[in-house]
Amino acid sequence: MKKITVIGAGGWGLALGLLLNEKGNNVTFWCYEEKEKEDILQHRENKRCLPGIKIPLEINFTTSMAEALEEAEVAVMAVPSKAVRATAQKMKDYLQPSTIIVNVAKGVEEETLLRLSQVIESVLPNPVVVLSGPSHAEEVARHIPTTVTVSSQDMKYAYEIQDLFMDMYFRVYTNEDLIGIEIGGALKNVIALAAGVVEGMGFGDNTKAALMTRGIAEMTRLGIAMGGKPNTFAGLTGIGDLIVTCTSGHSRNRRAGELIGQGYTMDEAIQKVNMVVEGVPTTKAGYALMQKYQVEMPILNAIYKVIFENEPVKETIYNLMLRDKKDEH
Amino acid sequence: MKKITVIGAGGWGLALGLLLNEKGNNVTFWCYEEKEKEDILQHRENKRCLPGIKIPLEINFTTSMAEALEEAEVAVMAVPSKAVRATAQKMKDYLQPSTIIVNVAKGVEEETLLRLSQVIESVLPNPVVVLSGPSHAEEVARHIPTTVTVSSQDMKYAYEIQDLFMDMYFRVYTNEDLIGIEIGGALKNVIALAAGVVEGMGFGDNTKAALMTRGIAEMTRLGIAMGGKPNTFAGLTGIGDLIVTCTSGHSRNRRAGELIGQGYTMDEAIQKVNMVVEGVPTTKAGYALMQKYQVEMPILNAIYKVIFENEPVKETIYNLMLRDKKDEH
Repeated sequence: MKKITVIGAGGWGLALGLLLNEKGNNVTFWCYEEKEKEDILQHRENKRCLPGIKIPLEINFTTSMAEALEEAEVAVMAVPSKAVRATAQKMKDYLQPSTIIVNVAKGVEEETLLRLSQVIESVLPNPVVVLSGPSHAEEVARHIPTTVTVSSQDMKYAYEIQDLFMDMYFRVYTNEDLIGIEIGGALKNVIALAAGVVEGMGFGDNTKAALMTRGIAEMTRLGIAMGGKPNTFAGLTGIGDLIVTCTSGHSRNRRAGELIGQGYTMDEAIQKVNMVVEGVPTTKAGYALMQKYQVEMPILNAIYKVIFENEPVKETIYNLMLRDKKDEH
Repeated sequence: MKKITVIGAGGWGLALGLLLNEKGNNVTFWCYEEKEKEDILQHRENKRCLPGIKIPLEINFTTSMAEALEEAEVAVMAVPSKAVRATAQKMKDYLQPSTIIVNVAKGVEEETLLRLSQVIESVLPNPVVVLSGPSHAEEVARHIPTTVTVSSQDMKYAYEIQDLFMDMYFRVYTNEDLIGIEIGGALKNVIALAAGVVEGMGFGDNTKAALMTRGIAEMTRLGIAMGGKPNTFAGLTGIGDLIVTCTSGHSRNRRAGELIGQGYTMDEAIQKVNMVVEGVPTTKAGYALMQKYQVEMPILNAIYKVIFENEPVKETIYNLMLRDKKDEH
């Protein structure tokens, strides 16, 4: 039994915290806002992010970082990618040096183009483990069999976190390729936006499968250029997460894309989805990475032009899907 | 304008014949049964296989192979994989040596373990081109943008067929890896059966994505052992076709698996789907290939045990998804 703190009480943080609580650990959540905490305590449920899932009384919620991190052996960071640096800074004074940080956010820092584990390491001296894979919170909270991968610079921490989370319905694998795992997890949200746009425009399953196939290829190209391994992109945190994000009704990134494909602006789409759409900032960061590493990424490029340069969605996506390429590779 | 014969008037044959007709070619269909022909002529529609799609009057239908193949420059073979050899034998006496055969069936011959292009080549002296990719007939017939790949032993025929089919909404790429294309197209139906079973058992998108990820890995392992190229399995005829077959409502293989996951027997499932379920014979052929090439294929193995050896579906799939593996690769 461990003392565990989950930083962020959104859907994914909650699903993981519930799992760790069921496994007999002592779980405390840090909430960003007093109102969020009050709502959860009142209903023992996060009605916006994880409706229908009851939160047992033994799980604690606080907005005090000092209280949340007291004696924490593991701190799971489940905040939006944009908030990772600021949150790490808030955590800094209350962490013990031995506390293992588990980051479950997916993205790339826009300003620095750092992977999120690098962002955390630039603020905190603690060991950082990354947990990623095809894992909608809604399903994990309902004990639907799910597989994820953990990685860290020093794999001994990854093994420890593997044991902590491993359960009958939650299968945790290890993979040493931290770069590949983080880049795959971040970029798949961009491809999911594009897949949503294609759906929103009324295209079909054939078109979406073609786009996803090309999507995994361009994710892999960038990942390799950044030092990741091709195999990782063919695994759970690459194809696996791409598939679930592009095809599931649960995916907010796909849903946001669908709305854009139907003619809504990016701002309207984000508002309608009413949760964080990680694909949007990741498109911006990914565009910079594409230029930095000089990699061909036609899908990311098209989505960037549509959401940040107001290029017309129909024309841009038509050009993307119907371009005159002759050989498959 | 070419004289083209389509052998088989099921959904996929019809969708391709309609496309070639729209492109100004002279298209004749050979029907397997008189009754099928009469139904189509009466309604100008194949109500069972491609409902809602009208067939123009200028397209001809016949059950006479002599009549069908007269002066044919290209013969598209769109028959179930089990019927490929017998159909090629029926065609033999009426083909000119220059007629290009385009095979669009997906499978492996059970008795010989030959790829379908090899089956055709063992019967006919004609050049054979294979056309494959993520392409539900229902969507192609509705002009939804679709991408496919063509290949042949002598690529000059593949280029010719590329030009013949290429259209604004139907993008045809070439790829020299004939083996990889045929093995991917065949095996994805087995993985789609398994994905359907997982769905039918009530598992979720997370579970299905994990299964598909492992499915593409085991397809690739066998394909490489047989001489195919890894890249092909990461392309349209591999991942692309796998995605569309595992996730689309149109897929009969996925649907048959879903019924099996719900507790129906294989025979009941096939009867309910009421169209050819290629994944079933391919599971048998694939099982033999797995043994011949000594490749680890846990998903194919599990599906084989369930449908051919009456192993209990729930236990078998639970064991498959929850086995104790620690490292991702």
